[in-house]
Amino acid sequence: MKDVATAAGVALKTVSRVVNGEPGVHPATAERVRAAIDRLGYRRNESARVLRRGRTATIGLVIEDVADPFYAGLSRAVEDVAIAHDCLLLSGSSGEEAGRERELVETFCARRVDGIVVVPAGADHGYLRPELEAGTKVVFADRPPGAGLDADTVLADNAGGAGRAVRHLLGQGHERVAFVGDAPAIYTAAERHRGYRDALGDRYDPRLVAMRPPAEEAMRADLERMFALDRPPTAIFTGNGRCTVTALRALAGRKVALVGFDDFELADLLRPGVTVVAQDPARMGRVAAELLFRRLCGDEGPPEHIRLPVRLIPRGSGELAP
Amino acid sequence: MKDVATAAGVALKTVSRVVNGEPGVHPATAERVRAAIDRLGYRRNESARVLRRGRTATIGLVIEDVADPFYAGLSRAVEDVAIAHDCLLLSGSSGEEAGRERELVETFCARRVDGIVVVPAGADHGYLRPELEAGTKVVFADRPPGAGLDADTVLADNAGGAGRAVRHLLGQGHERVAFVGDAPAIYTAAERHRGYRDALGDRYDPRLVAMRPPAEEAMRADLERMFALDRPPTAIFTGNGRCTVTALRALAGRKVALVGFDDFELADLLRPGVTVVAQDPARMGRVAAELLFRRLCGDEGPPEHIRLPVRLIPRGSGELAP
Repeated sequence: MKDVATAAGVALKTVSRVVNGEPGVHPATAERVRAAIDRLGYRRNESARVLRRGRTATIGLVIEDVADPFYAGLSRAVEDVAIAHDCLLLSGSSGEEAGRERELVETFCARRVDGIVVVPAGADHGYLRPELEAGTKVVFADRPPGAGLDADTVLADNAGGAGRAVRHLLGQGHERVAFVGDAPAIYTAAERHRGYRDALGDRYDPRLVAMRPPAEEAMRADLERMFALDRPPTAIFTGNGRCTVTALRALAGRKVALVGFDDFELADLLRPGVTVVAQDPARMGRVAAELLFRRLCGDEGPPEHIRLPVRLIPRGSGELAP
Repeated sequence: MKDVATAAGVALKTVSRVVNGEPGVHPATAERVRAAIDRLGYRRNESARVLRRGRTATIGLVIEDVADPFYAGLSRAVEDVAIAHDCLLLSGSSGEEAGRERELVETFCARRVDGIVVVPAGADHGYLRPELEAGTKVVFADRPPGAGLDADTVLADNAGGAGRAVRHLLGQGHERVAFVGDAPAIYTAAERHRGYRDALGDRYDPRLVAMRPPAEEAMRADLERMFALDRPPTAIFTGNGRCTVTALRALAGRKVALVGFDDFELADLLRPGVTVVAQDPARMGRVAAELLFRRLCGDEGPPEHIRLPVRLIPRGSGELAP
């Protein structure tokens, strides 16, 4: 800045005024300062500004995996809200590892983000307490924080949506409905299993349940085992988008009714089209980010627990008879 | 830090040593400092550290849209490389707007990123010259920088891949091959059109070309117009993943051969399976990020221009006879 001031023949304070868009500088002088800046390649040092003002106009986002379309859609929505608030977004993927989630959150905090939207991978968020007490705003999305922390949370109606899917299959006359879901340690997988179990009631049979990270070979083995039972399943409820796509591959054309949790691109172009219980990842991202900005704008109300509805989209696969 | 020093009954310098992992502190004293830190919720201020050391261990990434699976895959790969180098990734979507690209790059620079991977939306990168001269490392991915700037660039073999797709269709006996691509101002769309045109030679007919941002209604109208010609197309080459998916919807089951540029999830599950010329977005992200870190580690060689190969994956749609 000193070099710019010297080059433009003005006081240091004048350069500062021009850079920060403050009034009180003659247009011709401002023009001279800007020309000197262009000439010298001066760039404003945000780090110094942060130290002066205490606000960074930055929010952080921790998701599970940006290459998963659900989280890509959620990310994009959070970014759009951040842009609308003239904020920059830092983001990172936890890869479903609690340690990585904590590392990302702590790195964001060390860089003084104003707030964070977290899709938690871990079940213990005690490490966040000092940050929350220091005034960092945190909103949990897709999954709630670990026990003992009451914080703003935006979830889908996981159990309700699973029940909806199962009742839809029962309504077509299916008596044996399998559940193929993600690892039971994942909150959404456990909740959807709960909804599945409650909707089945007395019909629930643990032999028709397989829960693990979706991978084609393992899922094929799980399905083969179920189809070899005396009373094999005639319908499958898959617990998330990855599970649905993996199941479609593992089934390799075998004719069985299927309803998946989560919509996915091309679900309508497959034959039969894939019936899903759809949540709206963009809406979840938007609602979480807007709640975060309300907190940043001073809303000091008690923690909010928002539950977003899901909807059943019949496309053919869930309407096959037993 | 002063509060921590007071609480632990040690000198300010001792707190600094413990926080920065420097030697010369008795273990029991270090323990006392850490306890005070936990109690007080002190957090290291990265902004202050940056000013002292001049390096931020942060890289930036500007893509077009994180909700597009191609860029989501590229993002994830860049993030993985950043993590392996103990770096944080800032990322943002340009939404195909030159102004937004520039804003993101300048914001990243103002926050002192060490380097940036850019998928450029704009065609003028003169604004980057001062940053490059100030030592910020920049690698362009997917598209080259605008005229006049020679910089590290990682591209797919766009024209070669398009030629490969067209020759594959000609090899099945097709004489009338249409091209449905993205807006011609986009580098990859223009390059793929060039490859298509070159491979067709005398068979090239501009009435079989439609280039615009993919949207179902407009594409349906384009295709209807082509199918109403005296000599309608019997095959279609689509210029990117979004165009392929939109074309599949717009075609609504009409039987016509099709090869798409870019692979996409479920391409193998559609009937017929969709033949594609596949690039590898994860590889592009990895190669670009690794080149960036080589530059950050001091590689001062001339700008590199890396061209990644593509491969044809026949699945059925590109093998239909006229």
